[in-house]
Order: sequence, then C-alpha cells, then structure tokens
Amino acid sequence: MKIGYIQMEPAFLDREANLDHAAEMLEKAKDADIIVLPELFNTGYNFQGKKEVNALAEDAETGVTSTLLQEIAKENDQYIAAGYAERIGDKIYNSQLLVGPGGFINSYQKVHLFCNEKKFFEPGKSIGVIDLGEARVGQMVCFDWFFPECMRTLMLKGADIILHSANLVLPYCPNSMVTRCLENRVFAVTCNRIGEEHGLGFIGMSQITATDGGIMHRAPESSEETWIEEVNPLLARNKDMNELNNIIRDRAVGAYDLR
Amino acid sequence: MKIGYIQMEPAFLDREANLDHAAEMLEKAKDADIIVLPELFNTGYNFQGKKEVNALAEDAETGVTSTLLQEIAKENDQYIAAGYAERIGDKIYNSQLLVGPGGFINSYQKVHLFCNEKKFFEPGKSIGVIDLGEARVGQMVCFDWFFPECMRTLMLKGADIILHSANLVLPYCPNSMVTRCLENRVFAVTCNRIGEEHGLGFIGMSQITATDGGIMHRAPESSEETWIEEVNPLLARNKDMNELNNIIRDRAVGAYDLR
Repeated sequence: MKIGYIQMEPAFLDREANLDHAAEMLEKAKDADIIVLPELFNTGYNFQGKKEVNALAEDAETGVTSTLLQEIAKENDQYIAAGYAERIGDKIYNSQLLVGPGGFINSYQKVHLFCNEKKFFEPGKSIGVIDLGEARVGQMVCFDWFFPECMRTLMLKGADIILHSANLVLPYCPNSMVTRCLENRVFAVTCNRIGEEHGLGFIGMSQITATDGGIMHRAPESSEETWIEEVNPLLARNKDMNELNNIIRDRAVGAYDLR
Repeated sequence: MKIGYIQMEPAFLDREANLDHAAEMLEKAKDADIIVLPELFNTGYNFQGKKEVNALAEDAETGVTSTLLQEIAKENDQYIAAGYAERIGDKIYNSQLLVGPGGFINSYQKVHLFCNEKKFFEPGKSIGVIDLGEARVGQMVCFDWFFPECMRTLMLKGADIILHSANLVLPYCPNSMVTRCLENRVFAVTCNRIGEEHGLGFIGMSQITATDGGIMHRAPESSEETWIEEVNPLLARNKDMNELNNIIRDRAVGAYDLR
C-alpha cells in the first residue's frame, strides 16, 4: 500500500488559504492510500494568545476542515491524517483528525504537549490504534515521539504504521524515528512543516521510516514536498529479529519499573 | 568527574591474556573515576558450545577476574565496570561486574539476551541503580539498550550515568544511544569491543553520550582506544527540557499500556 506525507508551509491564522493550499497539494497525492499532513496544518502553530486558537478550533466531525478533508478522502478513495485544533465543549485540543473514504474515523488528542502548547491546549488522555482493514494505524502528534512509551503502547496495541503529524522545531526527531521504528518494528510517516512563525523556525525533514529503522525518504529542510512510498504493512506484524529474538516476547516486563 | 571506556580486542577463550591486556590498558586510565570495559572482556563472546563458557565462568566476588579488578580499582582509586561470565550455583549469566576502591560492589545479570547467548546464559531478572556517592549509576549490558524500558527503568530509579558494556555486532546502537540519553537526560558510557570471532565482526564505535544526546566522543571502528571525558553527573538530575516541560512529570502514565 502507498503511504505518504505533504510537507507544507501553513500561513499563520489563515485557515482558508491553508485549506486551499492543502487541497491543491492533495491533488498530487491521489495515489496515496494514506496521506499525512502536518500538525495544525490549517491554522499555523505559534499562537500568541488563547484567542487566536479559540477562533479557529473546530468540531472533529462537522468543522470546515474535517468537512473538506472528508470530501477529498472520498473523492481520492484514501485515508487522510491531519493536525488541527479541536474543540470539545469548552476545551481545545491539539489533535490529529483521521478521515477515510467513508467519512470521519477518529480524532486523536495529543497527549504530550510541548512548551507553550500547554497554555492553549488540554492534554489528551488516551493512545489507541485504528484498524483500517488493510493496515492498523497509530496516531501521534509531534512531541509524542519523545516519550518511548507512546509508540511502545501503539505497537503493543497492534499498530503497523504510525501516522505522525508534526511541527518540529528541535533537531532530534528525524534521527530518533530510526530508533523508534527499529525498537518497535513498525513503519512511521512523520509529516513536518517548514517556515517560520514569530521567530520560531520549523525544520522540515519529514520522513518515512521502515520497520528495520531504514529511512525510506527524508524531505528537504526548507521546501514543500509531497512524497509517497510503497510499503507492505504486514511486515510490521513479524516481530522476530532473528531465530531467537522476538521484540515482544523478549520484553522483560517483570524487571521494568515504569510507574 | 571523569568517566571513560577501554575499547579493546579480547583474545577468544584466553582469559590470562585478556586480564593482562586489560590491566595494561587500565594503566592508561588511572585518571578515570569510572571506567567501563566491554561485555565478556575476559573470555571473548562467540562461544561454540556451553563447555567453553562453563570453563571460564566465575564467582562475582572471589573469581580471578573480580579479584584482579578489585586490586586495580583500589590501586587507582576508581570504579571499574566490566562484562564477564558469572557463575551462581549451576547457572551462568552474562554479567557486568562493578568494583570500586572498597572492593566488590555489584554484579548485574544481563536481562535481554541476544541470539545465541540464550543457549549459554540465564537471563537476569532485575534492573537497578547503585549510588556511588558522587554519582548514581545504572548497569546495562549490550542488547539491553534495544528495549527502551531498560534505560527508562534505570532513569526512573535515579541513574545519572549508564555504564554500558557491549559486544555490538549490529550497526544501530551508537546512534540510538543519542535517543536513549536524550529521552532520559542521562549520561552513558557504551564500551564496545573490536575484532572478529568465528565470522562474527564487532563494530567498535564505543561512545560517551551526554544528557542532551550529544556525542562527547565516539571510538574508531577497528582499533583499540582508551578514552576519558569530564562530566558533571548532577546535570542528569535536572529533568527540565524548558520552562514548561519536564521529562518525568510529562510522562502520561495513565495513557500508557506497557504490559
């Protein structure tokens, strides 16, 4: 199956422009079975106050962003994962929407909030896996990668492919995804953004990583890019490293103290 | 304080030669406060049958290897961590000895056995931290690095510095130690060996890694090297990434499912 990302440069607070731009880039990603967009692709990231994000937060199923992505997913017969600000009652989350040919599927609320995000968003409370039939996917937003427990939980719940929307500002994630995929024997699509907002620069380098930690493709640092790779998600279900090691059976759960 | 490693090439099954060689190399490491030797530095690694390892396994406190290292540690007023085959009753473990100026301190039995090691060794059952006063150290042997739970447990139990004896044959560990140290904000000394045994090649590249994931020094792939770096172990006790993120407090334990 074909998995990919759209590394783009969102325009800060200009949702209409971002939806148009994403729709245009998605035109060139029609072949993808699963396509990932950056964290907060429709609003930009570096909010200077809660008012800004409050004005753009949306409902997961009926919001303007969700509605558009559902239309495109249906039209292209594909799954789309995309970061957005989600409103649930009077709370706002840094979420990743997942839609497919049949419409809305899930909204994942980012569990590990980075820095100023804590001023604007509530943290999510659960980490789960969605079975799409052809593959089981785990959803993750940006800083979630930093905590090994997050992808570990997704792997143990059966994820084959991690859909990772990001707005990376620190340099570590792309190389660390090699370790994350290797230790969990899963695929990952890390979709980052480019550009700068109020002095905060984003590093690009979106990446598709294989179950053996191989970097299938890494995007440039400062230009937009749509990229698609062919993968066999079932490879992620074989957790044998060699004849004697299996990365799930070899976990020494009794020796760990992870409270 | 000064932490370092001795990347050496053990002679297969020739304990006497290995002890002499290690003692010679330790002469040049007198300045180190803590010095790490490779996994199974005194016996070699690629055993072809249980008889070979059985003939060389030793008691942690009274064995010839432990006795020699205790003498050197006392003489040099330093701590030495070194991999060896440990005998406990009729069982043999792939262990890391820790001795200091006052003699024997601890023997850690490797929890995660790699490949054929399962034919020769029992797996260890516990992962713990030793308080040396100037620093708290966590002991780890080779493949233990692969399981994020291992260093996570050591960090959560208070380790400042990971003493990691290795016989690496796969290429992944040195780069992955960047992620491991970054995600746990600890120092690590990975001491690998060089050379080849029965067709199995070891990759060298011993490494001292800082709490920010910085590679303080990496050894060459195929020559011996003694290396020492100055570190402040107390840096590892500050788990703040920035004003709003702390890598322990930000763990979302309720969302993880790590059984």
